[in-house]
Amino acid sequence: MSLTMHQASIPAFVRMLNNLAAILEKAAAWAEARKIDPSVLVNARLAPDMAPLKAQVFIATDQAKGCAARLAGQEVPSYPDVETTLPELIARLRKTVEFISSVPAERFEGAEDRTISLKAGPRELTFSGRDYLFGFVIPNFYFHVTTAYAILRHNGLEIGKMDYIGRP
Amino acid sequence: MSLTMHQASIPAFVRMLNNLAAILEKAAAWAEARKIDPSVLVNARLAPDMAPLKAQVFIATDQAKGCAARLAGQEVPSYPDVETTLPELIARLRKTVEFISSVPAERFEGAEDRTISLKAGPRELTFSGRDYLFGFVIPNFYFHVTTAYAILRHNGLEIGKMDYIGRP
Repeated sequence: MSLTMHQASIPAFVRMLNNLAAILEKAAAWAEARKIDPSVLVNARLAPDMAPLKAQVFIATDQAKGCAARLAGQEVPSYPDVETTLPELIARLRKTVEFISSVPAERFEGAEDRTISLKAGPRELTFSGRDYLFGFVIPNFYFHVTTAYAILRHNGLEIGKMDYIGRP
Repeated sequence: MSLTMHQASIPAFVRMLNNLAAILEKAAAWAEARKIDPSVLVNARLAPDMAPLKAQVFIATDQAKGCAARLAGQEVPSYPDVETTLPELIARLRKTVEFISSVPAERFEGAEDRTISLKAGPRELTFSGRDYLFGFVIPNFYFHVTTAYAILRHNGLEIGKMDYIGRP
């Protein structure tokens, strides 16, 4: 009986990123059927000073790839924030799933007690791997996946909780 | 070096529930200052067929108390969904923090491999404790906390990401 940092992070992130990609595919098909300019969705926000859909995808994927790389002690791959269409955002989600799935689980061994440092805006944050995952990555990752879902839901896309959570 | 199911759940849930209580306190003060009927906020939704703010709080707290009780192998306390005001919702958040903080960490030992069964609507779900926490509780808990935040943000409350995440 044991619990690993890999079990606590990667499988759920893979599932949620795949679910979000499927939601964006629904959004693309819906926009086409309804003759909605898909860039309206890509740039939609829940409040004028909240980040738009595309940035929710940028940050969710950044959290996932940063987590996988840092907990495994390898360099975080750089994904420039250049995506401007739903297919490009879907490709970024798929690329993130591929990357985080490629990091061997055994590299996460002992990551709970490893020191993780990162820049968050102007600040340098330092955590144990445990606090980094449970107090920073997970709350941020789910915040941005949920907000992406909420932006599309608020704009009328017919999706429900099962699209978000997938089959448990 | 080790990781426990308690470390992976309760400290972050306590922090997020306290943060959400502080957000609802800001909402109550803002409603009073702006002469907004607070029940408008309590019943606000992001889409006509999405759950209102109060239900987001109900479900977030249900996830947290259910997780603490089930992983510890004790009975899940029943919280009837009777709260209709911001102070009542804040009290429910505080009560949940108190309960989940009261469950001894050592009761979670081995919970990753314990079988957890629960009813979700008409369905009976069965998981390992590990899959229950990472594949069900965490995605649901953060979904509802984030949606509560998003509903208030969308309605104009001046809050930001730091209100959601707290000081890491």
